[in-house]
Amino acid sequence: MDKDNTIFFDKIRPMRDEIDRIDSEILLLLARRQAQVEKVVALKKAHNMPVYHPAREEDLISRLRSQATQAGMNPDYLEDLYRVILRQSRIKQTRKMALKGLRPEAKVLVVGGAGQMGAMFVRLFSRSGYEVRVLDREDWDRAPEFCKDIDLALISVPIEKTCEVANAVAPLLPPDAVMADLTSVKQAPVADMCQAHKGPVIGLHPLFGPTTDSLDKQIVVTCDGRDSDACQWVVEQLNLWGAVIVPATAGEHDAVMEIVQALRHFATFCFGDFLCQRHAPLERTLEFSSPIYRLELGMVGRLFAQDPGLYAEIIFATPERRALLKEYIQSLSRHLDMLDRNDKSGFIDQFNRVAEWFGPFSEQAMRESTFIINKLIERF
Amino acid sequence: MDKDNTIFFDKIRPMRDEIDRIDSEILLLLARRQAQVEKVVALKKAHNMPVYHPAREEDLISRLRSQATQAGMNPDYLEDLYRVILRQSRIKQTRKMALKGLRPEAKVLVVGGAGQMGAMFVRLFSRSGYEVRVLDREDWDRAPEFCKDIDLALISVPIEKTCEVANAVAPLLPPDAVMADLTSVKQAPVADMCQAHKGPVIGLHPLFGPTTDSLDKQIVVTCDGRDSDACQWVVEQLNLWGAVIVPATAGEHDAVMEIVQALRHFATFCFGDFLCQRHAPLERTLEFSSPIYRLELGMVGRLFAQDPGLYAEIIFATPERRALLKEYIQSLSRHLDMLDRNDKSGFIDQFNRVAEWFGPFSEQAMRESTFIINKLIERF
Repeated sequence: MDKDNTIFFDKIRPMRDEIDRIDSEILLLLARRQAQVEKVVALKKAHNMPVYHPAREEDLISRLRSQATQAGMNPDYLEDLYRVILRQSRIKQTRKMALKGLRPEAKVLVVGGAGQMGAMFVRLFSRSGYEVRVLDREDWDRAPEFCKDIDLALISVPIEKTCEVANAVAPLLPPDAVMADLTSVKQAPVADMCQAHKGPVIGLHPLFGPTTDSLDKQIVVTCDGRDSDACQWVVEQLNLWGAVIVPATAGEHDAVMEIVQALRHFATFCFGDFLCQRHAPLERTLEFSSPIYRLELGMVGRLFAQDPGLYAEIIFATPERRALLKEYIQSLSRHLDMLDRNDKSGFIDQFNRVAEWFGPFSEQAMRESTFIINKLIERF
Repeated sequence: MDKDNTIFFDKIRPMRDEIDRIDSEILLLLARRQAQVEKVVALKKAHNMPVYHPAREEDLISRLRSQATQAGMNPDYLEDLYRVILRQSRIKQTRKMALKGLRPEAKVLVVGGAGQMGAMFVRLFSRSGYEVRVLDREDWDRAPEFCKDIDLALISVPIEKTCEVANAVAPLLPPDAVMADLTSVKQAPVADMCQAHKGPVIGLHPLFGPTTDSLDKQIVVTCDGRDSDACQWVVEQLNLWGAVIVPATAGEHDAVMEIVQALRHFATFCFGDFLCQRHAPLERTLEFSSPIYRLELGMVGRLFAQDPGLYAEIIFATPERRALLKEYIQSLSRHLDMLDRNDKSGFIDQFNRVAEWFGPFSEQAMRESTFIINKLIERF
């Protein structure tokens, strides 16, 4: 080692030691933070309070961002860091809470429990100490015995079977049992269940796939059918498992889902279909592309890795949906003329109208997607 | 608020205050850490030592992992956290170092340097020690003086102005100066530049916006015009700043960009336009939605936060593009009949054909987007 190097290492050693000391202090503080969070969780459990509190997280993040700016640090950096810290504390909290059965003495019947979604709920209820019975086509002769002292009958069958199954199960249930379904359409199934069963009815739509391994922050839409007080424990149990509950009327649910599911998946289908029709050079387009294009093309490719039957069911679910999708296609045809006339200023006018309608969401989307893009750049 | 709630809030408040105090201490330590790292970087620069030191990072991570285990914490959590911390310190360090100029004696002329993209390149070249001159409309009478000993003339003006500007600047340049442009179309501009200037010519298309603060991992497509050896130093300089270089012919570039830019942005525009036309309840759809919907809607919203003129230019750039977009609209109209006939099995057949065409990309997209979704769940 030459002299300059020796001087360098003599100088850098104490600086590095100081960094190491700071890191040890940070670690001790993180351990203290974790212990404190555990106390909070214990208190919440004792008072049956929900564990995850999005508003408090956002307050904390805003406060830290402004403190960071004052301390001459990049607020995005502090935010990234605290997203990791808060996630860890959330995982610890929900893991502790996740197993808790709210009414573990209750008996749960899952009709169609051999399907993926049904199986997921069988797992969740069983882990929390509920007695769970699974009724499938092949056990139908044992249905009366399975149904007789049930507290919750969860119907997990395709949309077009829901009505039939509700009618078959209802007469076998105790009158005060809760009947619920899990389909992605709510108006007809909730009405059918109310017709079939005279006790408490609630429609549930879990907005996630059956491969999800925790309900943490996953959304479940709930649509009251009848006697919502008697259904409340089911909703609270989902919440206790970490799910975010979004209550809606069945009509509103279906209107929103026309957009969130049918229109969106159909638009993605059409885009992928056109790429295929044109034999677009996928590999080459990816080499030429920004991370955000990779992500957008990934959203399209992702659709086609999934079950076509599931998407057909979502897209063709109701006549209203099909009408909406036709309207969408017709709305695109309006632009043919603009393209023919090379009408840039017409495009800009329409762009500005839409931008105004999107309002502050656009800015927020820009911020959020920039965060995602950075994550992609880190990884790929 | 009932009595139990009051007791709960009385008990939880001091616990939360303690967490807030811990967070403030952590923040101060992070600021001290950052200051210390800056000292180390200054020392390294003074001694010409490499800044980024992977081995030291890995040592640090292993040490922290074992300290974490001792303190009863999850070592993966500590590692996640320190990856964020170390990345931030690496960004700060490489930003300082990425200034290196490959040919700092060279003189760079940026025509249209007052625009956002031009200004970005002015910044990059200046920071790396190049003499940079900016020529804009108002300085046109000084053009001969600005151009006379230039090594690189970078034309950063809208597509439709590129030909005119190349013709105006070319006669004033030394014959061996490199002429380059930055537009998002390459065939016409590269041909126009070759026509105007008899020396080295290269077309550049930076695939990122002017708000990007580092070229790290960003893509630049390069299209040879004339004398690529003489243009090589420009390409290498971009590479040194961290950009990924993708060479292509101008024709191939334009064909790929029709899809990557024109079709994709137009499809997004149409989707946003339809949401606006239908007055879709954006806020409510977000409440009802999985993180992946939030991301997809974010991609749409993001478009409308940007410059309509830029998108008009991309979408209406050439007659070929406009023809492609009309073809896209017509391709969607094919599906009207399928919707009318409620033809689920026709949909499934077409879905399967497209899935087969996407091939292994779909699986990969599924994997990648699942990673992204997890990142989103962490954050939102």
